[in-house]
Amino acid sequence: MKVLDCTLRDGGYYTNWDFDGELVQKYFSSFEKLPVDYLEIGYRSLPEKEYRGRFYYLPNFVIDEITQLSKNKLLAIMLNEKSVQPKNLDKILDGLAPVISLIRLAVDPKNFDSALLLGEAIRKRGFDVAFNLMYMSKYANDESFLGKLSSLNGLASYVNMVDSYGGMVPEQVKILIHNVKSYCREAIGFHPHNNMELAFANSLAAIDAGCEIVDTTVMGMGRGAGNLRTELLLTYMASKNKLELDFNVLASLIEAWMPLYRKYEWGTNLPYMFSGGNSLPQKDVMEWVSQRFYSYNCIIQALHNQKSGEADNIRLPVFNPNKSFDNVIVVGGGPSAILHADAIKRFIDKLGNVCVIHASSKNAKKYDDVEVPQYFCLVGNEGHRLEVTFQQLEHFYGQCILPPYPRKMGTYIPERIKNSCYELEDILFTNKYKDAHTALALQTALNLSAKQVFLVGYDGYTNEAMTMREQGLVNENEYLFSSFQKTKIDLVSLLQTNYSIRINSVYEMI
Amino acid sequence: MKVLDCTLRDGGYYTNWDFDGELVQKYFSSFEKLPVDYLEIGYRSLPEKEYRGRFYYLPNFVIDEITQLSKNKLLAIMLNEKSVQPKNLDKILDGLAPVISLIRLAVDPKNFDSALLLGEAIRKRGFDVAFNLMYMSKYANDESFLGKLSSLNGLASYVNMVDSYGGMVPEQVKILIHNVKSYCREAIGFHPHNNMELAFANSLAAIDAGCEIVDTTVMGMGRGAGNLRTELLLTYMASKNKLELDFNVLASLIEAWMPLYRKYEWGTNLPYMFSGGNSLPQKDVMEWVSQRFYSYNCIIQALHNQKSGEADNIRLPVFNPNKSFDNVIVVGGGPSAILHADAIKRFIDKLGNVCVIHASSKNAKKYDDVEVPQYFCLVGNEGHRLEVTFQQLEHFYGQCILPPYPRKMGTYIPERIKNSCYELEDILFTNKYKDAHTALALQTALNLSAKQVFLVGYDGYTNEAMTMREQGLVNENEYLFSSFQKTKIDLVSLLQTNYSIRINSVYEMI
Repeated sequence: MKVLDCTLRDGGYYTNWDFDGELVQKYFSSFEKLPVDYLEIGYRSLPEKEYRGRFYYLPNFVIDEITQLSKNKLLAIMLNEKSVQPKNLDKILDGLAPVISLIRLAVDPKNFDSALLLGEAIRKRGFDVAFNLMYMSKYANDESFLGKLSSLNGLASYVNMVDSYGGMVPEQVKILIHNVKSYCREAIGFHPHNNMELAFANSLAAIDAGCEIVDTTVMGMGRGAGNLRTELLLTYMASKNKLELDFNVLASLIEAWMPLYRKYEWGTNLPYMFSGGNSLPQKDVMEWVSQRFYSYNCIIQALHNQKSGEADNIRLPVFNPNKSFDNVIVVGGGPSAILHADAIKRFIDKLGNVCVIHASSKNAKKYDDVEVPQYFCLVGNEGHRLEVTFQQLEHFYGQCILPPYPRKMGTYIPERIKNSCYELEDILFTNKYKDAHTALALQTALNLSAKQVFLVGYDGYTNEAMTMREQGLVNENEYLFSSFQKTKIDLVSLLQTNYSIRINSVYEMI
Repeated sequence: MKVLDCTLRDGGYYTNWDFDGELVQKYFSSFEKLPVDYLEIGYRSLPEKEYRGRFYYLPNFVIDEITQLSKNKLLAIMLNEKSVQPKNLDKILDGLAPVISLIRLAVDPKNFDSALLLGEAIRKRGFDVAFNLMYMSKYANDESFLGKLSSLNGLASYVNMVDSYGGMVPEQVKILIHNVKSYCREAIGFHPHNNMELAFANSLAAIDAGCEIVDTTVMGMGRGAGNLRTELLLTYMASKNKLELDFNVLASLIEAWMPLYRKYEWGTNLPYMFSGGNSLPQKDVMEWVSQRFYSYNCIIQALHNQKSGEADNIRLPVFNPNKSFDNVIVVGGGPSAILHADAIKRFIDKLGNVCVIHASSKNAKKYDDVEVPQYFCLVGNEGHRLEVTFQQLEHFYGQCILPPYPRKMGTYIPERIKNSCYELEDILFTNKYKDAHTALALQTALNLSAKQVFLVGYDGYTNEAMTMREQGLVNENEYLFSSFQKTKIDLVSLLQTNYSIRINSVYEMI
């Protein structure tokens, strides 16, 4: 049984394929002493519009560096079949021939025929080729697809079964591998995902069914809920005396990886479990879980919508206010909006021609007694929060604003306030983060013809060790503020803030 | 198939059985709406010397509160069989009769006969009794023990198989349950541990083999590597349409639990995998992993020793210095010892009759050129660190001091410095934390007849969000300093410190 560690390739989904140089050295020097056969070091790719780092393109000088660091492992790279054609191979494979043993193709079974042509072209250039077949839970009993696998005989070094959704159970894995083996005589591999904490159990089942090579990553680092942990498979094999393992080397590699783990916190959680259990793709989930400020609740809601094929629950009347307000107070979720509520309320009284927009309803209860029109941005899970904040909404008189239709992210709308809900026609002032609370709030202010927008409760974060979520929220808000400022409408914070916006203390204005 | 959630009981190992009141309310109100049958709410116990909280003793007023919170679940508590006798039952079961449906006994199979008597006595008082049989991986084929299980027929409501080491694989679980069923006709339950990330797979195997009740905890919170996650089992069952699940309730419970997770960070890691794979008990591992500042490396070393039955590798000559020093500089691992090294060195030059003790060798390289005797505390993994710091120790002239024999924690001694290693005869100035770096350093200072001890590199931690490990280290050092001060030997920090010790700036002394 062989092991392929693909940490740099699959873990790259978290780091955008950049890893600290010292960590890379540690990675290769550790694996020199660990009983693993292959290291998959990244992708080769044609240029893409968004930034991707070093291990996504693997330019030749990086390959050279790696061959200096890794002497006794077989090296592999991966190509995304859907974005590479045989005519690109001169460029894509340039400089790899002497040092890269194995090219793995990530293949959607739908594209099997073109993958076959690509694989043949790569094989002709002297590389070993493996086919990473994705979404295999859907094809375990699909004889018309499985039948095609016989064309891999004599071509593929091995055929890798990917449990893309992370929803397979050991029995299914056994059946899949058994079925594949009846069509394909090449070696079978397995690439598990850990959504249901079954990556290891499924791998044991795969090995039991005759699978000969398993993919692992350090600490399970990999897209979405992550992979089988290299250290788990190795420790298990060592405990069964199936290999010799230097725990000093392994432990110090894991400890070196720890800061990355603390930063990105990959691994499974409720949304990943849900997507695994219901065979839903992980790409969105990963973005929602790691980059943005969505609650589990509202991610699950969105996944429910995906599962039932709905973009969002309902189409709402478009927000076309017949009023306008020169002054708009936008209330964020920071604690300062509570601490200084008395001053803010005095300021509101003094202003005239003013309304309040709650970007988050976190602090809304404190402004319940303000007698100017109030708007509430309803994104994801805010509906539940409103219900709790305003005791089942019996005496709730605000209007709720939702993102434009169709909404990708599910939004919970409490029955009782259904008639006070409106959707924006469009969000025009920004080209990113259009479904964020703050984007909604600022667009609502624009729709209300605001001349001045006053922010409260946008404290920002001061601690050095910001979580990824906090960092994501900060980036998002900074981007939205800077986009909004292009409208030339005055944007000012009435309270202390760490964001790059002008401050006018509320206390000097009342 | 039934589910028993034992978060408050098993998660209590992390919180010392105290949980925040609001969280407890959230727990019970959530489970009112979740498809779980039993809630195990804690232990009843006779008084113990160390502090244990509310859910370890469950006084009657707490039971009353819980019955107000939980209306539609069956409630269970656990007794540790080894510390309860039939004569204690009046006290232990007082007030439980109307509200607690099930008493679970945690039983070491070695004590099965006395457990049987205890179980009968409890049954006579009208409670349902379940037997939680621990260490069952060792007894799966032990017919002489399994034969005894027939005496549970008619007595036990069910018999729970505990995978105490967390090292079982699905096939073993199936065999175990099959074998138990041939002796015992009562229902079988399963309590998995997640050391090898097999808690869920083993539970599926158990259910498949006819097990009727499974233990889970919220987010897997439980002793050591933790348990099967409640949310994982429920999400899986819902995806198979085996139960109705309100994901809003589940998601908001998980989110409420998140702060506890971030604080205690239970779950598996390399040491837990090693102990699982090698059937070693988790109690020590949990202490080492969560409370103290040991590297994975040295925990694994200690586990290696446990596995081979060694207390520690070798017996060393006792440290009986023929020198004495009026002044001792103890160097800790904080960054200030590097930042101010020049000043410290000037101070050392000025002092005379002085030696240096490196509690941690983290900063030792910076003091390499100091020409007074230097001692190095060798705990756990420091040997590896010394090798790295002093380039394979070719020009290393210090003496190394180890804790007294026998050492519970493994210590790596590099071959090259074996002849410069000594063990302390005893650590006398403190009754706790005797194998900590700082305990060693201070005892070494005492053995060298120090009249003044100067600390450098004991910066402490300033961030509000200290990790449990950092908090543990702070508590440990504070305790050691306060114990040392009882010796009346002057203890002073030469640099800024957050510890409660007197400061004399090194800059006013040179």
